[in-house]
Amino acid sequence: MGYASLDYVDLKYRPTEEDLVCEYYLEPGEGRTLANAAEALAAESSIGTWTHIATLKPGTARKLKPHIYEINARAKTVKIAYNADLFEAGSIPQIWSAIAGNVFGMKAADNLRLLDVELPSSILRAYKGPALGIPGIRKMLNVSKRPLIGTIVKPKVGLSAKEHAQVAYEAWAGGLDLVKDDENLTSMKYNKFEDRLAATLEAKDLAEQETGEKKIYVCNVTAETMEMLRRAQLIKDQGGNCAMIDIITAGWAAVQSLREANTGLILHGHRAMHAAITRNRRHGISMLVFAKFARLAGIDELHIGAIYGKMEGTKKEVLTMEHEIEDRIIKPDERTHVLAEKWLHIKPTFAIASGGLHPGVLDKLVHAMGNDCICQAGGGVHGHEKGTRVGATAMRQALEATMKNIPLTKYAQTHPELNQALRQWGTKPTGGE
Amino acid sequence: MGYASLDYVDLKYRPTEEDLVCEYYLEPGEGRTLANAAEALAAESSIGTWTHIATLKPGTARKLKPHIYEINARAKTVKIAYNADLFEAGSIPQIWSAIAGNVFGMKAADNLRLLDVELPSSILRAYKGPALGIPGIRKMLNVSKRPLIGTIVKPKVGLSAKEHAQVAYEAWAGGLDLVKDDENLTSMKYNKFEDRLAATLEAKDLAEQETGEKKIYVCNVTAETMEMLRRAQLIKDQGGNCAMIDIITAGWAAVQSLREANTGLILHGHRAMHAAITRNRRHGISMLVFAKFARLAGIDELHIGAIYGKMEGTKKEVLTMEHEIEDRIIKPDERTHVLAEKWLHIKPTFAIASGGLHPGVLDKLVHAMGNDCICQAGGGVHGHEKGTRVGATAMRQALEATMKNIPLTKYAQTHPELNQALRQWGTKPTGGE
Repeated sequence: MGYASLDYVDLKYRPTEEDLVCEYYLEPGEGRTLANAAEALAAESSIGTWTHIATLKPGTARKLKPHIYEINARAKTVKIAYNADLFEAGSIPQIWSAIAGNVFGMKAADNLRLLDVELPSSILRAYKGPALGIPGIRKMLNVSKRPLIGTIVKPKVGLSAKEHAQVAYEAWAGGLDLVKDDENLTSMKYNKFEDRLAATLEAKDLAEQETGEKKIYVCNVTAETMEMLRRAQLIKDQGGNCAMIDIITAGWAAVQSLREANTGLILHGHRAMHAAITRNRRHGISMLVFAKFARLAGIDELHIGAIYGKMEGTKKEVLTMEHEIEDRIIKPDERTHVLAEKWLHIKPTFAIASGGLHPGVLDKLVHAMGNDCICQAGGGVHGHEKGTRVGATAMRQALEATMKNIPLTKYAQTHPELNQALRQWGTKPTGGE
Repeated sequence: MGYASLDYVDLKYRPTEEDLVCEYYLEPGEGRTLANAAEALAAESSIGTWTHIATLKPGTARKLKPHIYEINARAKTVKIAYNADLFEAGSIPQIWSAIAGNVFGMKAADNLRLLDVELPSSILRAYKGPALGIPGIRKMLNVSKRPLIGTIVKPKVGLSAKEHAQVAYEAWAGGLDLVKDDENLTSMKYNKFEDRLAATLEAKDLAEQETGEKKIYVCNVTAETMEMLRRAQLIKDQGGNCAMIDIITAGWAAVQSLREANTGLILHGHRAMHAAITRNRRHGISMLVFAKFARLAGIDELHIGAIYGKMEGTKKEVLTMEHEIEDRIIKPDERTHVLAEKWLHIKPTFAIASGGLHPGVLDKLVHAMGNDCICQAGGGVHGHEKGTRVGATAMRQALEATMKNIPLTKYAQTHPELNQALRQWGTKPTGGE
């Protein structure tokens, strides 16, 4: 039963409906074959360790043993089916500690990347998923078809609560649906959570009255769990409609707690730090896996990359994630290493594109992602030479043009706000510059 | 104020007592110099974005601007000093979202690694640190000098609560101080948390009576936060003395919540998943940074690597981490990229060595790590041909020999349990095999 044996390789095995399946990219450590390294991986993530142990009984070993049922030497990938009894169904931290835990540090692998996870229905049923999801958010805003547009208040930190609320007001009044706190902005010395919340919700009310549109304030509640829940309740009590959490720096236990609190708020998932884990193509965990578990945990809208922005991430990867969090049935794809999934009762999560966007790329973004996306621009709104409000209007005009299928450059001829934005940033991706 | 300017580079700047300092390894993205990429990094982690924005006032920009005060072209490292007002002092998730958040995904860098963080006293004072730490744990056990030894119940999962308790009993009775749940073991269908806790604490009582020694049951409470806190309280109510949390898969918000609950339990920090982030030398976050924030958050004993085991991690790295979590004053070291720290009121965290250890390497491990370490062996105890109890005795004998400065092979001549262990595994590291 030690790492050296090949007890777990069973290429004739077919995963059952009740197995949890993982696909890993795996570079074997020195002196190991791919199959041999896969054995160590399967053992460490389930019932094995580095040596034979007297306490593992044959019956248990048979029942709970993992099955390495596919080994692709060319792609250096393996698929492992795990018995669902290896997991505490309702605990994302436990599932991750097993399939994405110690395994990354084993000498048995030089590099290891968790590419995707297929969850059995027994695990899916342990979660409620998003309380609102795409249909709930659309209903709340009374926007049935078009993409949503938003901004992040900038600078990331440094504004007082009052200044923050003023910038938010300008953005909403200019035509945006959402205004979001930066992921770095929580409760600061010069901008306390309570002060910002009160002032910004007041600004939201005013903008809603003036525009006749419903608006969303994405208020960052990220903190130690109890403080986070207190902040979420404050939002609820004061008539707000959305709480944002940094899902990775706060962690899965807190994400689950926020969903369990059943506040009725939209849960907005920011993914700060993900690229420390997802960016290296040969090691770590794919963003797809994070996105999948965020939907499972009940995140209503999730950052998945901007395609035409300042952050890395290919178009194909972003669209793969969008399908994963928005579709009901996920078809497996060998080429892109996507496993199957049936999402059952779990509602779709709204995909958010954010990071270096501006009005000049909105049409391309919507063509790529479809209408079920939220397009956020921070610098691309507040950086407009005429200021936040006009920048927001330029975004709205870019969206109007896109929905009417009119080229941005043509629409800009009769819409000076958009015209100015295109003069500033053109119609090309920023590349972070 | 955009990424392109060099406003933040100030090589004459000297960090003040109130700055938070980060050292990063940085490979510039295409077309960028190191200084230029560092600008983007400093901006994204503080007050900037990719374009000039009207909402950033000159006063704010001056007060909160980051200072890139050291650029080492040869080592590709930069040091950045951040004004403490950029952070919510008591929130680890917020601090990480800033200094270890979006920055990893910027196109401005091809690779980026956070090497170390120096915390100002204003941030340190917002935390209580470990409730017990090394002195508290030593007092609880009445063991003043020697290293502690322990085991992880194996197989990782698969035993019933009763079987688990039996294995734990054997390990304690054989001479170990600690018995730990596996990081994958929480509340399973066939081994519920409540059942395991009750049975294992009973076994602990028995072993304590028989040996006359105090024992620790490291009980894994990792779960959604409320459930985690409920489990920790159960341990307390039933007379247990230690709660384990998977600090990364649960997340910082939960770690802080567990400490805030003030249960009086030893908090045992497991680091499953860390190597997804820490292993690549050119990207991600060093384990040193995780270790540092674990101490800050109040973890009493923390896994930092085994040196002579199955997990990667060099001796130098492990010892650097041990100093960071156990010492009061950390001296900066340019060569190993360690920044200074004064730990003020924060107690020392016990370093745990675990992963592929066995009695034959215990002397080397203790010589390297000193007496303030906890040596855990899982397979190296339960894999003993005579079973868990004899394996535990072999570990205790190896410790006795080490403390008496007698070579293991010599001590084994009169100690058959140790002799058998050496015959099985020799005196060399396992290398995971």
